[in-house]
Amino acid sequence: MRERFKYDIHATDGAARTGTIQMMRGDIRTPAFMPVGTAGTVKAMMPESVRSTGADILLGNTYHLMLRPTAERVHKLGGLHKFMNWDRPILTDSGGFQVMSLTQLRKMSEEGVTFQSHLDGSKILLTPERSMEIQRLLGSDIMMCFDECTPYPATEDQARQSMELSMRWAQRSRDGFDSGTDHAARSALFGIVQGSVYEDLRFRSIDALQEIGFDGYAVGGLAVGEGQEMMFRVLDFTMPRMPKETPRYLMGVGKPDDIVGAVERGIDMFDCVMPTRSGRTGQGFTWRGAINMKNARHKDDMRPIQEGCACPACTQYSRAYVHHLIRAGEILGAMLLTWHNLQFYQDLMAGLRQAISDGRLTEHANNFRETYALGDIDPL
Amino acid sequence: MRERFKYDIHATDGAARTGTIQMMRGDIRTPAFMPVGTAGTVKAMMPESVRSTGADILLGNTYHLMLRPTAERVHKLGGLHKFMNWDRPILTDSGGFQVMSLTQLRKMSEEGVTFQSHLDGSKILLTPERSMEIQRLLGSDIMMCFDECTPYPATEDQARQSMELSMRWAQRSRDGFDSGTDHAARSALFGIVQGSVYEDLRFRSIDALQEIGFDGYAVGGLAVGEGQEMMFRVLDFTMPRMPKETPRYLMGVGKPDDIVGAVERGIDMFDCVMPTRSGRTGQGFTWRGAINMKNARHKDDMRPIQEGCACPACTQYSRAYVHHLIRAGEILGAMLLTWHNLQFYQDLMAGLRQAISDGRLTEHANNFRETYALGDIDPL
Repeated sequence: MRERFKYDIHATDGAARTGTIQMMRGDIRTPAFMPVGTAGTVKAMMPESVRSTGADILLGNTYHLMLRPTAERVHKLGGLHKFMNWDRPILTDSGGFQVMSLTQLRKMSEEGVTFQSHLDGSKILLTPERSMEIQRLLGSDIMMCFDECTPYPATEDQARQSMELSMRWAQRSRDGFDSGTDHAARSALFGIVQGSVYEDLRFRSIDALQEIGFDGYAVGGLAVGEGQEMMFRVLDFTMPRMPKETPRYLMGVGKPDDIVGAVERGIDMFDCVMPTRSGRTGQGFTWRGAINMKNARHKDDMRPIQEGCACPACTQYSRAYVHHLIRAGEILGAMLLTWHNLQFYQDLMAGLRQAISDGRLTEHANNFRETYALGDIDPL
Repeated sequence: MRERFKYDIHATDGAARTGTIQMMRGDIRTPAFMPVGTAGTVKAMMPESVRSTGADILLGNTYHLMLRPTAERVHKLGGLHKFMNWDRPILTDSGGFQVMSLTQLRKMSEEGVTFQSHLDGSKILLTPERSMEIQRLLGSDIMMCFDECTPYPATEDQARQSMELSMRWAQRSRDGFDSGTDHAARSALFGIVQGSVYEDLRFRSIDALQEIGFDGYAVGGLAVGEGQEMMFRVLDFTMPRMPKETPRYLMGVGKPDDIVGAVERGIDMFDCVMPTRSGRTGQGFTWRGAINMKNARHKDDMRPIQEGCACPACTQYSRAYVHHLIRAGEILGAMLLTWHNLQFYQDLMAGLRQAISDGRLTEHANNFRETYALGDIDPL
């Protein structure tokens, strides 16, 4: 019998941990990177290909799916897993972040956010209760509380008001989640710590969420323009206060070196569009940094994007070919480079998990950073 | 030891034939449909996926590849097969058709065609000799003579002059092909019958090409706006005069019913962008005709695009999902629908081959046409 939600930490190394989250639909090895499947598809990828890179869980975007094809339709069609042919865990966000970043004419109130759909301009009210309902209709395995991602920069007073609203919404999200029955036996609910860059606010947010009680705790309001140094500074004071027995999720992060630094500080889960989005725009990841596959220096290069990488872009094709595809605007270019980047991210996570198990994370992370900063050597 | 080029006809049924072309890089089952890999990729498909549909041979476009990445670069990188990861036969066209349809400021002369690249505006001369050289550099298995695809409509005088030029270029193509050595042991050269809609000109073209001698003979200058009825009329008088022992290739055709009618008239090989291009624009093929997956009637339809189809779009996804992807402009929509359409075309060819083998082509073709004309039934 599989657990609804159980986090076993197998090893720690400093603040970092590696373990397994057991859920009904499968295990999630941590630290985990969740590829983003915004509109019911990890862009340019078949789900079996996403799985082949080592992904244990995907992220789905509530905002996009509620507008099209709508949560009610996904539910009627058998749920998001069946719809998109992914039978492992899916985490859904609350929709709040996209409402703030993608819509016009928003109006915030205690009740929730009213906004215009970016698709047809229709007026929609999103509340904690409705967000829970949508995530339940989608069939989400890990639901996120509806919150306000505090903009950066924010004064301490702005950050406090925003955080306190999010905490009231966290309680309403918890109540909304608990009022359902069908999903309670298989889904989990995560709270989201806010408080911007203010230590006291972050602490109060953690306390408020723990008071309510969640299966896991996310750090929100980072990767919004504050920069890596500030992000790490916030993690430095936030992480030691975070609950230790439950997963910790850093939302929307990030670049490979962001992830490495956050894992060192105790983060267990990540999501980011970077590997998929940059794959569609010609950027490929290597252990010597990201490279622009559009660059003419690749046009005669018979080497793979990354020597030793197991993805089809690297085992079956040259840099010259991928360069050609990207230059020609071919869909296969986006397919191959997305696949490679997702493989790179999963290899990054597997390396971090192993290093934590082996008790050599500091050395591993320093080696990664040193090599990554070198830059790709021009072979010609 | 594999043959360079050997056509075995296993069975005939009326004018139709089914057989196998043996080549160094693999067998081609006829009647064959060749997916088009314009710029070194069958758009939105991994080559192993193209193969999985049953494709024995791809078509590559000389015009696109000569401009980018250039034939010399493809050669230096190990040839087109290695470049694009397809180890089976590739047929290349001569570049002439695309020069006529895609370029500006063309100038025809006895020597060849001067044109401006649609990529950078540079001035390029394409001749029969240069076309042969490019196709050789690409590593083509079946090269096509450089010819002029006579525009439609054309007066008999225009068609005669155009055809006679193409016949002189056919001789120069043959000489250019024969002057090379490295490819002679593994490649084949096809002539192209021109003559527009004029019986006497088609006959003279066939005679001229046979005089020169080729491994196969294509029917050119059709599917250029003359319509199916006229196309079949031309095939009706042309096909009985075509050499019987060698493959017959109808260039650029076509819709499923075009293919069925042409097979009944004795054509062995086809190529067309229809399954791939229409897959990217939301059209899917079914045995009850083509359907527009953008249409709102699919949005709640849990059925596959085509019941019984073995492609992943049909075995793993609903019409509702493919509809959602196409509506959302998702790359996976183009991937799945292209895959389905290529599977449909290969299933069409497999059915025709079997029917010819069984001596029931007329019944099979009539059944196909009757069902195809019914239109897809709305399930809701």
